[in-house]
Amino acid sequence: MTKLSPGQTIGILGAGQLGRMLAQSAVQLGFDVITFAPEKRPPAVQLASAHFNAAFTDAAALEAFAADADVITYEFENIPLSALDTVAPHAPIRPGRRCLEVAQDRLFEKDFLNTVGAGCAPYRSVSSQQELEEAVEALGLPAVLKTRRFGYDGKGQTFLRTQADIALAWDALGNAPGELILEGFVDFEREVSVVVARGVNGKARTYGPVWNEHSNHILHRSIMPAPVSDDCADEAITKALNVAEALEAVGVICVEFFVLKDGGGVIANEIAPRVHNSGHWTIEGTPASQFENHIRAITGLPLGLTDALGPVEMHNLIGNEIDDYETLLADPSAHVHHYGKPEARVGRKMGHVTWVRSDP
Amino acid sequence: MTKLSPGQTIGILGAGQLGRMLAQSAVQLGFDVITFAPEKRPPAVQLASAHFNAAFTDAAALEAFAADADVITYEFENIPLSALDTVAPHAPIRPGRRCLEVAQDRLFEKDFLNTVGAGCAPYRSVSSQQELEEAVEALGLPAVLKTRRFGYDGKGQTFLRTQADIALAWDALGNAPGELILEGFVDFEREVSVVVARGVNGKARTYGPVWNEHSNHILHRSIMPAPVSDDCADEAITKALNVAEALEAVGVICVEFFVLKDGGGVIANEIAPRVHNSGHWTIEGTPASQFENHIRAITGLPLGLTDALGPVEMHNLIGNEIDDYETLLADPSAHVHHYGKPEARVGRKMGHVTWVRSDP
Repeated sequence: MTKLSPGQTIGILGAGQLGRMLAQSAVQLGFDVITFAPEKRPPAVQLASAHFNAAFTDAAALEAFAADADVITYEFENIPLSALDTVAPHAPIRPGRRCLEVAQDRLFEKDFLNTVGAGCAPYRSVSSQQELEEAVEALGLPAVLKTRRFGYDGKGQTFLRTQADIALAWDALGNAPGELILEGFVDFEREVSVVVARGVNGKARTYGPVWNEHSNHILHRSIMPAPVSDDCADEAITKALNVAEALEAVGVICVEFFVLKDGGGVIANEIAPRVHNSGHWTIEGTPASQFENHIRAITGLPLGLTDALGPVEMHNLIGNEIDDYETLLADPSAHVHHYGKPEARVGRKMGHVTWVRSDP
Repeated sequence: MTKLSPGQTIGILGAGQLGRMLAQSAVQLGFDVITFAPEKRPPAVQLASAHFNAAFTDAAALEAFAADADVITYEFENIPLSALDTVAPHAPIRPGRRCLEVAQDRLFEKDFLNTVGAGCAPYRSVSSQQELEEAVEALGLPAVLKTRRFGYDGKGQTFLRTQADIALAWDALGNAPGELILEGFVDFEREVSVVVARGVNGKARTYGPVWNEHSNHILHRSIMPAPVSDDCADEAITKALNVAEALEAVGVICVEFFVLKDGGGVIANEIAPRVHNSGHWTIEGTPASQFENHIRAITGLPLGLTDALGPVEMHNLIGNEIDDYETLLADPSAHVHHYGKPEARVGRKMGHVTWVRSDP
């Protein structure tokens, strides 16, 4: 059990807005931050005392980075495991290698979710068009064909409505790297997520469940508390805790769930083995945010409180929605976050805004 | 009226913990930060995209710094006015030159406070031992002899109890640079302060009044709300607003007050023309902290809400009090801030901790 003291250094693999918000909490707690990313000046670099700008396959750069870090964490799940193995001899990796390994592959992830009793959509592994046809036969339509690895925000997936879509879907993804997975249709009521912060001592605290609405496969807004029954909320929290426990995560992870119709409870959708967009509301909406508790956890410090201060709503600012920046700032109760990205490309997360209501 | 857009650069003169917390808010709002200070690696540098490490008398370094800044602010009041004059042609200076000019000199400050009706302790200018004797005659004892300029946290002042202390006080401070001021004794009940955030459009919001307790002349703790009558609170707020208005401040200033005994109202003690230690409670205790509203104000953005979320208490961690860091973190309701200073010297502000109570 490694414990860090203020002045020691947290190394972050990846340096986007999640890394930036992690670094903000690290600064508050007195830690130094270094970042590693293939981008030259990603959002987190503004807060880093050094930025290692190299590919995740550059072993020499990874070693140099790791040599300067007292603990290593990551802000996104698609970091090659080989990169973790390169840095592992130098410093502890948290939440941990196993978390990435499971979350990087939709097939491993779903097997794992079933094993720990968190449930998931029906699925079949697919590695040929014939297997896809068999999988459609077994799971029915509609269904979603996805790459097993490296998908996010709707990338690497295609929706099948009719038999005719099988060939189209295979054409679209059959040449994708890695094998594929077909996920059966889940007729869900809404999507919710639970963020879990788990300390080195195994003690955990949770945020949520929060209700997430997506637009074009990208999180649009999160509402806390999620409008679900107490039983349903308890089930999501218990399942998320079980996932964190089974992964032996040290730090923050997020588990997304489908809330089934007609009181059918919840089944897991996917695991994000890191701080998550659906936890941004915790910055102003709880005493200790997901970012602060991640830093506390990975440095071996005790966790802070995670209870919501009131009803909270968080909106992402995607692409040119960031043009509303000044209008939002004129709303005196809005907490506006700008990620400092220079260019508002379509689908790019540029910032977010949170409202905490004092009335219940 | 200059207005900045995210991605533009805020230049901070000084780079201590106040600059660090200003930079944290600047980062949230998407601005870049550069710092200028005589120290090599002061606390704010961790968040700066560039640090200009030079003396405040180094005109070339000041020009280089100013050339990279879109607006210039400062985190402490003892910056030579000549430095402001060097950077002034390059970017607007906020809260403004006049604020510094007044706050840097206890004599100008007291004249100003009387002029705007904020009141202050009785005082006399002193530039010889004979003038000191005459001042003691006029104001009585006890009294405090202070240097007019460059005093802070009790430095540059000495207390006079008896006639015999006159010669001792003169020996102690008579050779201090600049002239002296004798302040008469004020039999006050407690000290409170009001932080004012004032926008480019002249609209202002206030925090507090908060009750400040000192230990060895250094702020020990602040309690919000201050235990004073509504009339007294209103008087402090009105006087603080008048000060900000008369100074034409753009940004955050703080006015400290003495609450007189027996319902005698408040008189000003001093002006801090910048974010202030007695406003640290606003980080977690209000929707928009003094740091965020300072950044909003100096960049021409509208101000956020300043109402307290509940009763708040802030403790400074001075010197080796920072050794309580882990114990404090184990209190799940404590918001702990570590300034990242490597060495816990006596009297050095190492961090602070804030509690926000949800019960009134």
